[in-house]
Formats: sequence, structure tokens, C-alpha cells
Amino acid sequence: MRGIIMHGKGDVRFEERPDPRVEQPTDAVIKIIAACVCGSDLWPYRGYDQPDHQKMGHEYVGQVESVGDDVTTVSPGDYVVGSFVISDNTCEICEAGYQSRCVNAVFVDGEIGTQAEYARIPHADGTLVALPGKPDDDLVPSLLAASDVLGTGWFAADAAGAGPGKTVAVVGDGAVGLMGILAAKQMGAEKIIAMSRHEPRQQLAREFGATDIVAERGAEGVAKIKELTDGLGAHATIEAVGTQESMMQAVRSTRPGGSIGYVGVSHDVELPGGELFFGLVHLHGGPAPVRRYLPELIDLIWNRTIEPGKVFNMELPLAEAARGYEAMDNREAIKVLLRP
Amino acid sequence: MRGIIMHGKGDVRFEERPDPRVEQPTDAVIKIIAACVCGSDLWPYRGYDQPDHQKMGHEYVGQVESVGDDVTTVSPGDYVVGSFVISDNTCEICEAGYQSRCVNAVFVDGEIGTQAEYARIPHADGTLVALPGKPDDDLVPSLLAASDVLGTGWFAADAAGAGPGKTVAVVGDGAVGLMGILAAKQMGAEKIIAMSRHEPRQQLAREFGATDIVAERGAEGVAKIKELTDGLGAHATIEAVGTQESMMQAVRSTRPGGSIGYVGVSHDVELPGGELFFGLVHLHGGPAPVRRYLPELIDLIWNRTIEPGKVFNMELPLAEAARGYEAMDNREAIKVLLRP
Repeated sequence: MRGIIMHGKGDVRFEERPDPRVEQPTDAVIKIIAACVCGSDLWPYRGYDQPDHQKMGHEYVGQVESVGDDVTTVSPGDYVVGSFVISDNTCEICEAGYQSRCVNAVFVDGEIGTQAEYARIPHADGTLVALPGKPDDDLVPSLLAASDVLGTGWFAADAAGAGPGKTVAVVGDGAVGLMGILAAKQMGAEKIIAMSRHEPRQQLAREFGATDIVAERGAEGVAKIKELTDGLGAHATIEAVGTQESMMQAVRSTRPGGSIGYVGVSHDVELPGGELFFGLVHLHGGPAPVRRYLPELIDLIWNRTIEPGKVFNMELPLAEAARGYEAMDNREAIKVLLRP
Repeated sequence: MRGIIMHGKGDVRFEERPDPRVEQPTDAVIKIIAACVCGSDLWPYRGYDQPDHQKMGHEYVGQVESVGDDVTTVSPGDYVVGSFVISDNTCEICEAGYQSRCVNAVFVDGEIGTQAEYARIPHADGTLVALPGKPDDDLVPSLLAASDVLGTGWFAADAAGAGPGKTVAVVGDGAVGLMGILAAKQMGAEKIIAMSRHEPRQQLAREFGATDIVAERGAEGVAKIKELTDGLGAHATIEAVGTQESMMQAVRSTRPGGSIGYVGVSHDVELPGGELFFGLVHLHGGPAPVRRYLPELIDLIWNRTIEPGKVFNMELPLAEAARGYEAMDNREAIKVLLRP
């Protein structure tokens, strides 16, 4: 079969890879129906992480081809969505809702790579969720979003304590930030402030539920957030970038006692203890336990209550993934869907 | 009247200060019955913070002398305990339970200083809690503890999510760490691991509810905690020191999805974003909103359910406070009670 390999910085190739097969009795092999490029894929693409012939891709909608003897919740022919982290969903950490740090966790990126025609999914019962049936074609982008960006934005909103009566600030207007807006809206937030300076993204932010847009950054951005919150700061702040600047933006935009849900993969971030201490905020984040939320998210999508798939504004054949990386790198595309 | 002034590093003097008087209609003036030296007073004492003729002391049990016209909840003659941060207890931040960051917050240290014969307490209604009557003499140390170390340890245990079925690790065997143990026990924690290498403190830790003692620090300390928690780490970790070492000890001792309540005043701490991100822990802490817990804590003390006052193992006349600072500095005393 064929799939995407990142040979090095900026070097994305579509090439032959060994056919995945069931290796463990808990494995499933799935045919990929749709995959995509993630904002986090840009870290290696830009050379911040050192890619070395890395199998790419960790978001996927698929159809089960074959399963190992111990797999009981999905069968060949089933349509499935899974998380970007393999989890057994039975260990104590999974039971507590932190499947992304399952004692048997494996990141799909690198080990597996779903920007491909097929993928082997270990711990299929704990990782995959079967769809109610064959998804209508227009649902596929939304289901694909559930695999990571929606689940991640949802976790961030949850970790930030978004809810009725709350003001939520969202730092980052990439796909995850936009999904954080959608999640905050679903959770009943009263005011949702999107920090964005890009007109098309501002528009999408509004579609997803943003009530206010703040284009300023740094101290000016913080001042604007304070202005919109009686001088106090947001109750709940979503951080969806992962840089020092964005984390400090989040910390400083949050009121004492408020919460920050951070899901941008941290790169060279050092949090100053003193400022955090006197800020008296809650901080919670990391790789989102998407599997926790998947059944609920699939439901909301299947019932057409939410349409997170709107976040994809470019679609390409898998063979042309390199163009998709380029388009996301130069912010021409918010998120690129790939079809094998 | 007389009170304690820290002239500079290690230079603690008992001297004349102006008599406090009601200045605002929301003020009360109280006669101090008991005050004490706090672990945090050692930061300026040791020269980490730069003391410059600073009025010292922020813990207090007192009796109201006089009140301003707007004060309604305490009257002259009432016995009172208050928090180490002045709060109006009516603003939106206070309403949310974060009185230590009240929009009118004033730290008692520096501005007021309760290592003194009298003190002016602004926002008396929002800061002080009247006791049910004249406290028995043996209750005074415990009531004094409520003013900061107990309230702070309680907040840390609460922020860490201590509760039934939980394993709580406590980093720091100072007064606040010990109070964290007492709090975790009251909250129903199943296993409480005290990190302590000092025999008398280990003993007190056990009295307050510790079930296990870990004397190791650093990587070895983390390994011991893992050993005691099926390899996963504590559900809830209390950090009560405030150094880089202790914060990292806390982060690394906590399981994914677990929580850290940190109340040691941060000094030169830089938290590595990447490790925090992949740790997937909750982090919450800062100056404890003691006022939130005071009514409940006073109740527990008044009913003799808890005896946090055991944390005081030295008592001195206020005039000899300098000796108390010295005894705490060289860890001869855990906490020193001062009587004017």
C-alpha cells in the first residue's frame, strides 16, 4: 500500500509502505476513507521537531478490514473513527478519562501513520468507535474532525471549565482553536472571545459561536480581554498554539480562580512560577483524551447538531498531500482533508 | 503600641509603631491575642525577598477594639480570626471563592503586620470571622493556624482533589505541608504519603494522618511514590515549598489526569511546558483563599474535631520574636506562636 512519509524538514512524500496486517489479537486493520493534515504536523514540517522518515497522520475515518481474535466491539465492514492515541480503555488511567496517557498508549503518528491507504490499529476495542452505519458523504469531514481537532478543542473547553454564564477566551485561530469555540458554544458559554487577526478565520469563528473578536496580541490583547470582562479576565481560556507567547497570553487573559485548558503542543515553553502562583488560575492540558469524548461527539455529528467539518477548507487526493502541507504552512488552508 | 519590624535580612526588631485606628468606615481595629511566624516570613528573613523596614506578621487571633460605621458582622468585644489577605468578600472574584485575589485585596504582611499589639483590619466584614465566644485557651493555637497554614493546607488539598479513595502525596514537611496532611485526612483520602526526612516531623505527619513516609527526594522520591501507587503516581499532590525542586517533585509524582495543589510561594520556579503538557496533570495554586474556608475550619476546631494547633512547637512572648525567627530558620521549631 502507499502512504505519506516525511523524510525531513519540508520533505513530504507519497510512497510504498508495507501492507499493515493484524499482528496482535487486539489489532484491527482499517481501510482509510479520509485522513488529514494536522496543525501539529507543521512542527516537524517546519523543522522544530526533527522528522526522520516519519510515518505521518493521526486522524482517520475508516472501514474495518480485519480484526484479531480478541476484538469484540468492531467487525469487518464497520465504519469507525478513532483517537490519535491508541488506548486500551480499561486501565486505571483510561477509566479516569485520560486515555491519551493510557498505560499502553501509542501515538498514531510515527508508529502507525494514517495518511495512508490502510492502517493497523492496536487495542482496537479501546481506540476505535463504530459508527451507527455507513456515513453520508457530507458527514465524513465532521467525523474526521472528531478524531483529533474537535476532540482536542472539546477537551480544552472542558478543561477550561466552559459552561453557562461563562466568558471563554480562545487563543489561537487554527483548527483546534476554532473547534474550541464550537465546543464552548455547545457547552453553553455566554460570551466567546476569539483572538484572531485573520479575516476568513474570524468569520469561521463567528459561525462556530464566537461573540467577540480580539485582533490584538500581547499586552494589548490582554487589555482588550479585560475590557470585555469588567476588568477581571476570562473565566475560561483555551490555549491552542503552544508557544511561550500564546501560553502567557492565556495566563494573563484569565481571571483569578479561572481556568486555562491548553492543548497546543508545547514548544520551548517555560512558565514563570511566580506569575502563575499569584495569578491563582487553574491550568490543565496536554494531549487530549479524545477517546473519552468520541461517542458523544459522533452522536452530535450524526444527529447534525454540530458541523465541525466546516474547518476543512481544502480537499486533496492523498497522493498530493505535500501540497496540503504547503497550504497549511502558509496559512492558505485552515485544514486539509486527504482522500486515499 | 509595639510590633515587629524586619529592618533587613535576618534583622527582626520589636519596636514602637503608631497605634492603629479606624480610618475607613469598613475598618476594624483588633487587639492581637496571638500571632505567629510563618514559613513564608523566612523568605525575607533569609534575604530571598528584600525586606526594608517591613511590618511583619499576617496570622492572628484577636479581639475587636473598635469598628467603623459600616461594619456589621463584628462588634467591639468579639473574638475573631481573619485571613492573611484582606478581602471585601462581595466582589465577583470573592463570590467565586477566590478572596485572596479580591479586587480590593491587600496582603496583611507589609501593609498591616499582625506581629504587633494591635492591627487595623480593612474590610472587616469581608476579612474577619467572629468566633462563637471567648475561645478556651487551648483552642487559640488551632484558631491561629486557621488564619493561614491550616487554610492554606486545606486549599492545597482541595485544589489537588483530595477525597475518598484517593492517594495524596505531600511535598514539604513544614507547617503548611503538615496541615495539608490533616486536610487530606479530613477530606477522606485513603492513602497519604508524606515526603519528609525529619524524624519529629514524620511523627507529627503520622499524627495528622499520613499513612506512608517517603524520605527520598528527586528521582528516588518519585520512584518511591510510583512504587506506592501501582506505578501510576499520586491522584493528588500537595506542593508546600515553592522551589524548582519541590515543584518538579510534585509534577513527577502525579499520575496523568491527577492534580497538584501548590501553595509554597514560588521562588525562581520555571515550569517546563513540554513536561507539564505530556504529564497531563491539573495544576492549581497560589495564595490560598483562606476566607472561603474559615467558617468551616473554625467550626471543626471549635467542636474539637481537628487540632491543627499541634503544629506549634514553640511559644514566645512577642518581644522575643527574633528568637522565633531564628528557631524556624534553623528548623529547630516547626512553627512559633507569639503572644503580645
